[in-house]
Amino acid sequence: MDDDDQKVGAQLRVIVAPGIWIGPGKTALLQGIRETGSISAAGRSIAMSYKRAWYLVEAMNSHFDGPLVVASKGGRSGGGARLTPLGEEVLAAFHEMEALAQHAVEPVLRRLQERVRPRGEAAEAVPKGE
Amino acid sequence: MDDDDQKVGAQLRVIVAPGIWIGPGKTALLQGIRETGSISAAGRSIAMSYKRAWYLVEAMNSHFDGPLVVASKGGRSGGGARLTPLGEEVLAAFHEMEALAQHAVEPVLRRLQERVRPRGEAAEAVPKGE
Repeated sequence: MDDDDQKVGAQLRVIVAPGIWIGPGKTALLQGIRETGSISAAGRSIAMSYKRAWYLVEAMNSHFDGPLVVASKGGRSGGGARLTPLGEEVLAAFHEMEALAQHAVEPVLRRLQERVRPRGEAAEAVPKGE
Repeated sequence: MDDDDQKVGAQLRVIVAPGIWIGPGKTALLQGIRETGSISAAGRSIAMSYKRAWYLVEAMNSHFDGPLVVASKGGRSGGGARLTPLGEEVLAAFHEMEALAQHAVEPVLRRLQERVRPRGEAAEAVPKGE
């Protein structure tokens, strides 16, 4: 992820159970599959390799009590893919958690933003104390 | 980060301003500096290289309107380091945001946890739809 491209605010990664988490990468992939109807096209749209996109889909499908993504035909060698109702539910749950977290941290974040150095002002890197 | 080691719940990364963010790595480093009184010891305690620990400290110090960490003497070549009051404030603000986010996502997370496959049960990786 290129951090300069990120939206200001809370970014969430949720550990659902030990070894099972969902975060910006997996949800961008799910979103991309919904939009493109293809695992590899979804991967490409977020600069994720074909191999990693498949790996993440397989991981997600094995973590929940049903698949989040089904290959509509052809599977790995072509064809399309789509989200299942459970896939839609997991994606929506993540976005809901993001919005809730965003709203919850807002007052503290604003306080922190007041301490950010105005752009272009230089600072001594690691000043010596006494 | 080894994801299997992570605590269940929300993990936060906060983009405070464009290009300026704080997350689990930086806050673990700040915490480690507070506990060990040394940037390199803090880095070691979280399996972070000396070079990266210094890089992150310098980045954080340049992002806020004062340093978060000061080298107490010797600087890079030895000596100690400690958090400034601003460093303590940023660390506390992050922990506060984590707690707020955790609390906010809780009901949705619980709903999601009900959909997690019981451990040890196998799943078809990417099933074919119609």
